[in-house]
Amino acid sequence: MSEMSTSLKIAIAGLGVVGGEVARQLIKRQQPLALAAGRRLELVAVSARSAATDRGFSMDRIDWHDSPLELVARDDVDVIIEMIGGSEGVAVDLTRAALKNGKHVITANKAMIAHHGTELASLAEENNCFLLFESAVAGGIPAVKTLREGLAGNEMTRLAGILNGTCNYILTTMEQTGQDFADVLAEAQHLGYAEAEPSFDVDGIDAAHKLTILAAIAFGQKPDFAAALVQGIRDVSAVDFTFANQLGFRIKLVGVAAPGQVPRMQTCLLPLSSQLAKVNGVLNAVEFYGEPVGSVLAIGPGAGGGATSSAVLADIIDVAHDRGGMPFGRPVAQLADTTDQPGVGLADTPFYVRLMVVDEPGVLAGVTGILQKHMISVESMIQQGRAPGDVVALVMTTHEIASTKLWQALDEMTSLPSVKARPVAMPIFAADQEG
Amino acid sequence: MSEMSTSLKIAIAGLGVVGGEVARQLIKRQQPLALAAGRRLELVAVSARSAATDRGFSMDRIDWHDSPLELVARDDVDVIIEMIGGSEGVAVDLTRAALKNGKHVITANKAMIAHHGTELASLAEENNCFLLFESAVAGGIPAVKTLREGLAGNEMTRLAGILNGTCNYILTTMEQTGQDFADVLAEAQHLGYAEAEPSFDVDGIDAAHKLTILAAIAFGQKPDFAAALVQGIRDVSAVDFTFANQLGFRIKLVGVAAPGQVPRMQTCLLPLSSQLAKVNGVLNAVEFYGEPVGSVLAIGPGAGGGATSSAVLADIIDVAHDRGGMPFGRPVAQLADTTDQPGVGLADTPFYVRLMVVDEPGVLAGVTGILQKHMISVESMIQQGRAPGDVVALVMTTHEIASTKLWQALDEMTSLPSVKARPVAMPIFAADQEG
Repeated sequence: MSEMSTSLKIAIAGLGVVGGEVARQLIKRQQPLALAAGRRLELVAVSARSAATDRGFSMDRIDWHDSPLELVARDDVDVIIEMIGGSEGVAVDLTRAALKNGKHVITANKAMIAHHGTELASLAEENNCFLLFESAVAGGIPAVKTLREGLAGNEMTRLAGILNGTCNYILTTMEQTGQDFADVLAEAQHLGYAEAEPSFDVDGIDAAHKLTILAAIAFGQKPDFAAALVQGIRDVSAVDFTFANQLGFRIKLVGVAAPGQVPRMQTCLLPLSSQLAKVNGVLNAVEFYGEPVGSVLAIGPGAGGGATSSAVLADIIDVAHDRGGMPFGRPVAQLADTTDQPGVGLADTPFYVRLMVVDEPGVLAGVTGILQKHMISVESMIQQGRAPGDVVALVMTTHEIASTKLWQALDEMTSLPSVKARPVAMPIFAADQEG
Repeated sequence: MSEMSTSLKIAIAGLGVVGGEVARQLIKRQQPLALAAGRRLELVAVSARSAATDRGFSMDRIDWHDSPLELVARDDVDVIIEMIGGSEGVAVDLTRAALKNGKHVITANKAMIAHHGTELASLAEENNCFLLFESAVAGGIPAVKTLREGLAGNEMTRLAGILNGTCNYILTTMEQTGQDFADVLAEAQHLGYAEAEPSFDVDGIDAAHKLTILAAIAFGQKPDFAAALVQGIRDVSAVDFTFANQLGFRIKLVGVAAPGQVPRMQTCLLPLSSQLAKVNGVLNAVEFYGEPVGSVLAIGPGAGGGATSSAVLADIIDVAHDRGGMPFGRPVAQLADTTDQPGVGLADTPFYVRLMVVDEPGVLAGVTGILQKHMISVESMIQQGRAPGDVVALVMTTHEIASTKLWQALDEMTSLPSVKARPVAMPIFAADQEG
């Protein structure tokens, strides 16, 4: 329990929104942060793309390096904050080199941890270093600590999360304004909530990186991004929100993981009564299910300099107290290999299905005939208005069924002359915590 | 980072719902808990009221002690789990003796920490021991760890919490069924959600103990139960839920604390749109506001053997990893003395006020005259139906005002012949996180 009286010497690689905010906090709030950390936190060196940018803090007592890799060679650096990003390239080179050189690494890089987490955790172990990534998942929510420590006494049985603020903002806005995906995306890009190249967000990749990391800790397995089912929000139309609401659901991009199941990041329907369905806008949320605790839900800002730097500072404070623990909560040798597990499959769920059909006699018979042939039982069905000869939406919810089986039937429907577009199908997820 | 290979030796004092469940978990889940703790967790001794009770686990390798104080004298005990309860008496004697004898203490005893936290934290410091109480606050929600570690890099600016499941259950049921307090309390007692002597819960004392502890950690101050304003839920009537709903609010027992303000545990109105207002039934919730993070909300089971034992197990695992930290997140010498702070007051808030008045000419003039005299501005007013000569409810919401000023006016109204009962007044709290 003794605290080291020497300062913790910090280098930051990457001074973007988050890295810059971490630097500002370290400089402006020295005294309270030293109190929380039990010793002084000293920013000794930084590296970023341009030395000329004014970042709102003085560089007087901070060394500048053009290459982040130079930070590793410094004897006076204890911990490197990797804020460069990217699943490959400089960020990974830097992290490997830092750990090999006995430096602790704190990173917000979800892609790197989702893809190389096992290798990097091994390196951390071998070199007796901490590798911390609270800021890689769910921004200001201490989700990694909650799993690794707060709920460490539990057998985790399920995780569900809204892990991408951009997608949640787009879906919330689509629901509230009735606008279509493309318009809301353009607006989100204009407001700075979405990137010019939005694929990482809207195709669910960023959120799936985070789910991969959480699942690894929760279920004691190697992070394995390739094992996850990843679908984004591009297929959702404005009409789907209306139908979902009529049926008692809300549409969200939700990640779900459970032991022995394929982790899935999918646009889905959640019961309106569930707490998770009420998480709107740019917020993130993670619901942790475990025995004996039951379910704990945390909601908070998922992105932005403030929220993310809060997570980085918590990691720095943990390093200062020498309580960084193991990256995935247990030794790498004890992490299960998900690619090796027989019988891991995608869980059956109920589905929401929307067909665009010509409103003409015989359509329903064609559709229901195919459903019957594939033994798919329908829970409810809504046909939108009446517009003889026009294309209308035909919406149904099914009982629990395998995704592959459902799509065999839907593919067959697509060849019916009266079915006019590729069907849209979204799983319906149950939620434990009602509110 | 090296893990000790010797087992952590544990003694439990008190084998009620929580203590019994902790013992069962330690016995039944030895392997996963050892993996999480980095070493074996060994329950070596227990003490409880009756040795004869069957608690669902074998006592074969566990020593029994009639007096909990005997546990302290054992050389082979590293940590004592205090599950006896009570702000005075055996629990406090045991905790003092254990710390003085160099044993770590883990406790679920919110009353003890709220009343004696400073003294006990000093003892822990002097004897180089951990004093942990995650299970004392908000059951399965890792609220203490979130404040002490997960958000440790923040300047905390506000806390708001629903911290008593019994009260939240009673209020939710009153709202949903229209029943009055006494009936719902009787039902809750029958279901085991409320004690036969319900005062600790329904008068807000239990919840205020928890708020006192959270405020101490959040704002770096000595826990000081006496400084808090504590009011319960007894004054709420079924009609208040109807009026609150009409006005866009929900009634909750909420604790609010902020630096420089008197911590308050009060039955209040929350905007229906706030996340906190949607926390129903026996759930607890804590909303943490800080800079730079913004707001993080955690919702989970606030009581019961499963949820509470999850928190105890997390504390045990922290002790096993030698990462128990300081009880209030900083040295006792650095904790501020709240009793000594000038200018700490109760923040002004808007209020909901309900008067029971005889429906007769001149009533409104009498009431509004007093409001005008006291310079209280009214935001909205509802008069229930029309029933000439009968007693009806007159409800209003005010702009922000000091509680004392409002009550001067209300006391004056009580002396009006047409005002028939003591007015009911509840503060209206704002909420940051909307959902």
